[in-house]
Amino acid sequence: MSTTKCDVVVVGAGISGMAAAYRLKKKDQSLHVVVLEAKDRVGGRTQTVPMKAASGTDHWDLGGQWVGRCQPHIMALLEELQLKIYPQFLQGIKFMQLADHTISSYKSDIPSLSVLALIDLQRFINKIDELRREVNVEDPWLCRHAAEWDAITMDTFIQQTMWTKGAKEAVESAGRCMMGIETTQVSLLFYLMYVSAADGIKNLVEATEFTAQEFKIQGGSQQVSQRMVSTVGAMNVNLDEPVSSIIQNETGVTVKTVPGHKYECKRVICAVPPPALGHIDFHPLLPPQKQELIKRMPLGNMIKVIITYRTAFWREQGQSGEAVSNGGPSLLPCCDSGPLCIVYDATSPKGNPALVGFLGGHQAVQWAATSAVDRQHCVLHQLSTYFGQSALEVLEYQEKDWNVEPYTRGGPVCCLGTGAMQYFAAGLREPVNRVHFAGTETATQWCGYMSGAVQAGYRTAIEVLSQIHPDLVSQDDHDLYASRIITPKIKANVPWIKLTLCLGVCVAMGFAVSKRGAILSLISPK
Amino acid sequence: MSTTKCDVVVVGAGISGMAAAYRLKKKDQSLHVVVLEAKDRVGGRTQTVPMKAASGTDHWDLGGQWVGRCQPHIMALLEELQLKIYPQFLQGIKFMQLADHTISSYKSDIPSLSVLALIDLQRFINKIDELRREVNVEDPWLCRHAAEWDAITMDTFIQQTMWTKGAKEAVESAGRCMMGIETTQVSLLFYLMYVSAADGIKNLVEATEFTAQEFKIQGGSQQVSQRMVSTVGAMNVNLDEPVSSIIQNETGVTVKTVPGHKYECKRVICAVPPPALGHIDFHPLLPPQKQELIKRMPLGNMIKVIITYRTAFWREQGQSGEAVSNGGPSLLPCCDSGPLCIVYDATSPKGNPALVGFLGGHQAVQWAATSAVDRQHCVLHQLSTYFGQSALEVLEYQEKDWNVEPYTRGGPVCCLGTGAMQYFAAGLREPVNRVHFAGTETATQWCGYMSGAVQAGYRTAIEVLSQIHPDLVSQDDHDLYASRIITPKIKANVPWIKLTLCLGVCVAMGFAVSKRGAILSLISPK
Repeated sequence: MSTTKCDVVVVGAGISGMAAAYRLKKKDQSLHVVVLEAKDRVGGRTQTVPMKAASGTDHWDLGGQWVGRCQPHIMALLEELQLKIYPQFLQGIKFMQLADHTISSYKSDIPSLSVLALIDLQRFINKIDELRREVNVEDPWLCRHAAEWDAITMDTFIQQTMWTKGAKEAVESAGRCMMGIETTQVSLLFYLMYVSAADGIKNLVEATEFTAQEFKIQGGSQQVSQRMVSTVGAMNVNLDEPVSSIIQNETGVTVKTVPGHKYECKRVICAVPPPALGHIDFHPLLPPQKQELIKRMPLGNMIKVIITYRTAFWREQGQSGEAVSNGGPSLLPCCDSGPLCIVYDATSPKGNPALVGFLGGHQAVQWAATSAVDRQHCVLHQLSTYFGQSALEVLEYQEKDWNVEPYTRGGPVCCLGTGAMQYFAAGLREPVNRVHFAGTETATQWCGYMSGAVQAGYRTAIEVLSQIHPDLVSQDDHDLYASRIITPKIKANVPWIKLTLCLGVCVAMGFAVSKRGAILSLISPK
Repeated sequence: MSTTKCDVVVVGAGISGMAAAYRLKKKDQSLHVVVLEAKDRVGGRTQTVPMKAASGTDHWDLGGQWVGRCQPHIMALLEELQLKIYPQFLQGIKFMQLADHTISSYKSDIPSLSVLALIDLQRFINKIDELRREVNVEDPWLCRHAAEWDAITMDTFIQQTMWTKGAKEAVESAGRCMMGIETTQVSLLFYLMYVSAADGIKNLVEATEFTAQEFKIQGGSQQVSQRMVSTVGAMNVNLDEPVSSIIQNETGVTVKTVPGHKYECKRVICAVPPPALGHIDFHPLLPPQKQELIKRMPLGNMIKVIITYRTAFWREQGQSGEAVSNGGPSLLPCCDSGPLCIVYDATSPKGNPALVGFLGGHQAVQWAATSAVDRQHCVLHQLSTYFGQSALEVLEYQEKDWNVEPYTRGGPVCCLGTGAMQYFAAGLREPVNRVHFAGTETATQWCGYMSGAVQAGYRTAIEVLSQIHPDLVSQDDHDLYASRIITPKIKANVPWIKLTLCLGVCVAMGFAVSKRGAILSLISPK
């Protein structure tokens, strides 16, 4: 067993681990930092692949892809790494398929739902934003209603708050593509923390200016990790080297790997999803609360599909390429619904036409159990119901089921079910002696996103430096990972304000009837 | 890498794995069955240890210990293995500490709660038993309200159904000691299935005749697995041999182990808790639904404490040794409450006095994070509040935190949170080609109990035999693991019937007021 002595070992070469190593090296080039990665590539939950394109070959993202100006950490890093961004294409007709599977189209920022469903949705958004303001992202378990909100599922809250099938399904669909979960699988408290970490629900779910789906990275998001490798040093990033154990004593930490190497260092940064920690033997064991968190924080379910085309026929038809869906009817009896919960234009900055679709939550699991041929057939069929028969004439179809990705086994993010956060979440990002914890799940700004991964990586770098080189740490460094989000000035979202005003009277009327049952009886739910 | 050829490999030498191997060998002595066990002992979640006793040394169980006549599979096996049972001691005064931490004592079968809390508890029991009749243990996800009941936590159901703090805490306390969980952590559908598998909630929670806590096994429950070893052959039970991968092809299965051995066989029976399957590499991968189940079915949390004494001072004081508690007030600021949720007499059949206590759910996790000295101090202090200062004069104090037990990492049973059972549970006990699944979690009778472990083990043995030796399988064998429970004739539980009759008028009155709010306003909740 070969032994390497170094200053810091980083476990995981995803964006968070690479950001930690990168920040350490930027602060002190003389630090010997080793990154150990179980997979044969860097990038973690980002992966960029070449695909057949209209112009020959081009690149697309099979994992995380979107960034926005509301995400300061990733935006600053992209600039530092000289990576360029381009806006998500949104112009034209959009589709919505909820409740009774009817496909409706719309062009404005206001979803194509019945007036009642729109009121319902707006009320839900207001309510979530009201509640989440009580939830401090740093210590959500301390908020006044923590126990109450952690005891119910997001679905229970939806059933208590919303009336219309269409609006409920819009929220369910958002859960599937945003977090890879069913709303029945997540605690309300966790959901509110997640919304708080994004400074509001609309930042999370929209693709307009200053939201999370505003831009994509030219050439693909895996480059973020790849470009940081040159600063860290390629010889210091060891691929195909899963960690088997982490042993701490009074003087330092020993990290052992499956291929049989041993690393002796001062500090370790674990930058893997929480469940992956359960596959590492810690000596001494991690604290009980931390172990429990690892047991109760599974990754969601997500299959991402990229389809390249010769022409952007949807644009030619005046369509944006966007569709939000409950999946629509299923062509296969083994699946509750059609596969896709959301579709977007994915045309590359070089102009190579493509669409991107997501299968999320239980739909991703059900469809993963079908054959690749059936799945592709049904995905393309669903696309054709929005964009016509041209959707069937593909150049290349690629899909990535993150559930079978080695060492990750799920996507895009780990979520807590009920009855866990209030008891165990305090240990989420707390260092355990010489072991520190990064990964987007530990972020307080944009938890679950690339930006959160960067923030969490920086935080652990500063934690480690504060211990081994306190002279190198400034107040600015601490500010780098501050939990308070300073969102760049957001333009008033005019259409929604208009909608809110227009519908104000209806809502007031609705509320005057005071009893929900009475309102419900007036509504034929969409 | 040495290679062994055999007929069947059983993974896990707990009761379920040993029962599978035992049944196979009983059916066909010529079968070559190899059992691979990761730990250095057989028994899984049962473990019997020697302790200092009044008469010198005696044995106690640190894991599963109770059996009852309502559990046909374990009772038949005990007889076959010539293991004797003895009744749980129950005579005398019992204690109850709920709601405001006041300790009250009672002697009858009716818990010491206010009249309103008793009505509340009885209503809850009736309601659960009414709902669970809709839940078929074989396919709970098909019941009419499956989606609805899987979308809410047990706690949500409690808050919707119950009014009094005392009765609610009684149910919470039962969850902690019965399943190692908080009621916020489990889906109502799973809870109802669990109750159905025990043919009623009172079978689960009581220690009276024909319930789950009726008898204990003389000499300890680990003997169940140990005695089966002689039938299977000690040379066929390999300890300290964790399985690393299971590879299936058209002709058979190859099992590889961490120490570097290889087993080639016709069929594999996995008899480990579902999360442990996540640590084995399956080629091909397990079906998506099964993978998802593994991710979402964590073991509960349990610390079991045995304390031996020179005299059974509680019996001398006319006390049974039984106490049900919310934990009472905590002596340590880092814990929400005192440690113990339930205490029983644990005097051995040889007459060596002892008490057994359980720390369950989040209390087990919080108290695991304290020092061993503090924990022992607080456990004994809590006992002294029921039984007086004599509780402090211990002969030996032993505790077993199942969360740190290698390869098990939790106890006593795996439970599903919300939004999982309805989608993924269909694959729980479904074989995957040549790989079969035992373990108490897959049982349809007494899931979570030793009896369930036996039933599940037998089922997989019959599944395997039906494939490799169908001539050896009879209708009787299929009946052995039938899902319908034929509970032995149960004596009418007179005190409860009396109580129900006596309180009938009150309940009727209560219901007449129809609105829960109106009742609540009349109650000063205990």
